[in-house]
Amino acid sequence: MTTTELPESLISTLPGHFYTDPQIFALEQAKIFEDMWFCAIRSSDIPTPGSFRTVQVGSESILISRSRKGEVRAFFNICRHRGAKLCTEAAGEVARAFQCPYHAWTYDLDGKLIAAPNLTKMPDVDRVEYGLRKVHLREWLGYVWVSLADEPPSFEGTVLQEVVDRLGEVANLDHYQVDTLSVGRRIVYDVQANWKLIIENFMECYHCATIHPELTEVLPEFADGYAAQFFVNHGADFAQDVKGFTVDGSEGLEVLPGIDPDQDRKYYAITVKPQVFINMVPDHIIFHRMYPMAADRTIVECDWLYLPSVVEQGKDVSKSVELFDRVNRQDFDACERCQPAMSSRVYRDGGVLVPSEHHIGLFHDWLQNKIQA
Amino acid sequence: MTTTELPESLISTLPGHFYTDPQIFALEQAKIFEDMWFCAIRSSDIPTPGSFRTVQVGSESILISRSRKGEVRAFFNICRHRGAKLCTEAAGEVARAFQCPYHAWTYDLDGKLIAAPNLTKMPDVDRVEYGLRKVHLREWLGYVWVSLADEPPSFEGTVLQEVVDRLGEVANLDHYQVDTLSVGRRIVYDVQANWKLIIENFMECYHCATIHPELTEVLPEFADGYAAQFFVNHGADFAQDVKGFTVDGSEGLEVLPGIDPDQDRKYYAITVKPQVFINMVPDHIIFHRMYPMAADRTIVECDWLYLPSVVEQGKDVSKSVELFDRVNRQDFDACERCQPAMSSRVYRDGGVLVPSEHHIGLFHDWLQNKIQA
Amino acid sequence: MTTTELPESLISTLPGHFYTDPQIFALEQAKIFEDMWFCAIRSSDIPTPGSFRTVQVGSESILISRSRKGEVRAFFNICRHRGAKLCTEAAGEVARAFQCPYHAWTYDLDGKLIAAPNLTKMPDVDRVEYGLRKVHLREWLGYVWVSLADEPPSFEGTVLQEVVDRLGEVANLDHYQVDTLSVGRRIVYDVQANWKLIIENFMECYHCATIHPELTEVLPEFADGYAAQFFVNHGADFAQDVKGFTVDGSEGLEVLPGIDPDQDRKYYAITVKPQVFINMVPDHIIFHRMYPMAADRTIVECDWLYLPSVVEQGKDVSKSVELFDRVNRQDFDACERCQPAMSSRVYRDGGVLVPSEHHIGLFHDWLQNKIQA
Repeated sequence: MTTTELPESLISTLPGHFYTDPQIFALEQAKIFEDMWFCAIRSSDIPTPGSFRTVQVGSESILISRSRKGEVRAFFNICRHRGAKLCTEAAGEVARAFQCPYHAWTYDLDGKLIAAPNLTKMPDVDRVEYGLRKVHLREWLGYVWVSLADEPPSFEGTVLQEVVDRLGEVANLDHYQVDTLSVGRRIVYDVQANWKLIIENFMECYHCATIHPELTEVLPEFADGYAAQFFVNHGADFAQDVKGFTVDGSEGLEVLPGIDPDQDRKYYAITVKPQVFINMVPDHIIFHRMYPMAADRTIVECDWLYLPSVVEQGKDVSKSVELFDRVNRQDFDACERCQPAMSSRVYRDGGVLVPSEHHIGLFHDWLQNKIQA
Repeated sequence: MTTTELPESLISTLPGHFYTDPQIFALEQAKIFEDMWFCAIRSSDIPTPGSFRTVQVGSESILISRSRKGEVRAFFNICRHRGAKLCTEAAGEVARAFQCPYHAWTYDLDGKLIAAPNLTKMPDVDRVEYGLRKVHLREWLGYVWVSLADEPPSFEGTVLQEVVDRLGEVANLDHYQVDTLSVGRRIVYDVQANWKLIIENFMECYHCATIHPELTEVLPEFADGYAAQFFVNHGADFAQDVKGFTVDGSEGLEVLPGIDPDQDRKYYAITVKPQVFINMVPDHIIFHRMYPMAADRTIVECDWLYLPSVVEQGKDVSKSVELFDRVNRQDFDACERCQPAMSSRVYRDGGVLVPSEHHIGLFHDWLQNKIQA
Repeated sequence: MTTTELPESLISTLPGHFYTDPQIFALEQAKIFEDMWFCAIRSSDIPTPGSFRTVQVGSESILISRSRKGEVRAFFNICRHRGAKLCTEAAGEVARAFQCPYHAWTYDLDGKLIAAPNLTKMPDVDRVEYGLRKVHLREWLGYVWVSLADEPPSFEGTVLQEVVDRLGEVANLDHYQVDTLSVGRRIVYDVQANWKLIIENFMECYHCATIHPELTEVLPEFADGYAAQFFVNHGADFAQDVKGFTVDGSEGLEVLPGIDPDQDRKYYAITVKPQVFINMVPDHIIFHRMYPMAADRTIVECDWLYLPSVVEQGKDVSKSVELFDRVNRQDFDACERCQPAMSSRVYRDGGVLVPSEHHIGLFHDWLQNKIQA
């Protein structure tokens, strides 16, 4: 089966080995996840100077912390001397420095080498040059985005452009003031599937009628199979009898004060390549970050973000969390079901995309360009 | 050590890496298990329209089911749209169609695409062309044999020829009317050894005196080390004091009515390359199917087949099952003991075959031809 | 970062992939562990004729046993016929022969083929030629050292030369009469790190102040970061208030009678490449053997050796065992902490060695020569 034989209604997906080949995955790590802007942690995960998180970005362990002045810093999580992993925990706090537990090389919160046994006898060792290797970072939407590239791509030309492409202008996202919100719930999913299957799933709604009964109840137009992402700045209307974006259609929480009247009772979704999905509803934001671990394994961390008052007052968010938690589980089950067939001879040249999925082809073009570059 | 240095009594086995190299295993999957006739399931495993089994044939998951007319059908177990695995269970039953749980593409029991969301808006999508990918099949001896090849080899020239080579004519097997028998017991073994070690073990009886005390008790000539398979149509005689092919020599069950008087009180064994072993005794058939899973792992499914009346009346078959179950465990232990040494430098050029094992050399020649082709 | 850019105080380690690449590990197995003299077992582990041990040397399973005359013999642990593993247990005892449990090929304790079914009908099969494949061996310090090479390197020029390089002359080790001692305790560690990280750790003491509080308490000069191995025949003095080489500085056991007065109250350490570390203190010897299993896994077996009277009388050795057991665990934790960073881009060209570690560079040169050869 080759692309030229396909009827006009169908276009081809990527060949199956794109989802299984460790060499393609290594290229994706190097040229996509390590090179582009990667959404690593929520800024509030490191509230105070010295608090830190370690996350896997591509194949690297990255240490993200806050300096004495309260600024976010990101480093490769590895001692410059003999390569010991500096912090082995996923999260923690240090008083004022990171000390390697092997030979006690010690770095301040800005990464500078400030002490080591016999260091005074090695005056030619530059304290900055032999400080922790820094990683570029940007804060946006209350998240820390990092790039391991020596010269990162333009944040505006990549991350923000995705928002423009989807919503027409960044302002339409700014209204939600995502950086001011609080994490009401975080759920981590360990998905046995290639990260691209998850992106492709998120990009189309052709599957919604089949696997998302709760979601199509709230958003009736999803039963038609057209994803909200299909049209610029289109939001999917809530069903008439639905009061909020909740698993049973019951009332939601306080509406985010900045949103436009047009954005009320509507659901928007954005894919920010390569690893972020954002869902916007009137009273909360659902923010997904993917961490690709292997060709057939992806960790997805999902935050439900509400007004700080909602979280502080301990209001019950479970009805809204349950809706998209179910959607996530339904989607990830489907992705896991596809993964084993990626190595079948039937999928050697890929599967097919129906008209309401054709825009996924743009993602495939983008990916092939990226890893060929 | 090279073959030319061997004394005349000995010939060489395959080099060690044939039993460990993932690339050779991949070649074997492609050129042998996926291309030749592969004995997949017992026809009675899918008794009614819509009942199905999924089995691994080479590297592929194959779905075998029965049509509304009661005919057996075999398909690649993968949706033609985005590659989801259609059936994830090993066995089950559907009412009248296979529906993909991802986007609801629906196939009838003949594999034709009969429904999908918005399918009517895609009139150029041919329902047969985009039906399930079919697999060639043959029923014989009450088993379903499949070939994933576009043009399968001649069933007569391969499967049946093995029977002719061993028994002189297919009629000598036909007498047992294997297709009419019932499964009295099925045992599945998970063997940590290359499939060729299992074939080689089955092909020779030089090990019988050492590891099969119960078997040589029943078949005294096996103590001499010559496999029944060594001579055309030779059957091994039961010991004089033995009443049946049972672990303690006690009486067996009802003799199969069709067998030739010459075949009574005798044991025959056939290797049907690449993955079937058949043992024939007067009152039952022992039928092995191998499923090679990796270079160092093979699943063996073994059926003990008796007259339907024996099974229906719940007669005690445990004495006959126990005999060959012990033989199987003794053999598979030996194969597992050989597997780790296949990567030793001592086995780099292979081991040796004594005169009563020389016919295994023909299997090695066959194998090398197959994977070079 | 390249070596030429380093300040004079620093030299580079090996590039990171030397610690992770399976191909480099395979080269190390072939050209180092299988080719050089490998310290396999303690001679007393096989006390009587027919007692045996099986050990992994490089990628091979080696069978070491004692002949009827009481001499040590070493063989590849694999039957010459079809490659079955002869002995599957790590230790055991046979009466007078090794019999393969598959086809009963039987070898005497000198490895000669003495029996097999139908062997008398194969007079052209030479009993020595088809005996077990022998492995070169030497006994020294009460251990059995083997080499799988056809022509092993000079024992004097390799193993003994390491002792000369470190202690000036072999006599300085001979005083301890290590071969006459008894094993008071043996501990086996399973370390998730490359074997070279363990060697490098053992070769330097720059880490001692940071991770070995108990050891620097006993050997105060170790706090300065210079390894005993740094100077020829230098022994580290015990602290003045310390009575013995024990975890709490309490009295040790009976002093070994042969040692030189200069060697009392001192600690010596020798690295015998590629896989042995020896620590000498007045009342015992700590003897480590490494078994590299994979690029990221090494098993270390450590013996604490005392005067036979100490062991026979059941004296309490726990205070001395606990000291170095703690040191071992501290070291192996550090090595495991380095392993994951070996694949980081920050470690692509390696890390750095400070002046007190520069002698590790000789080990790196030696290694690169070995695997290029």
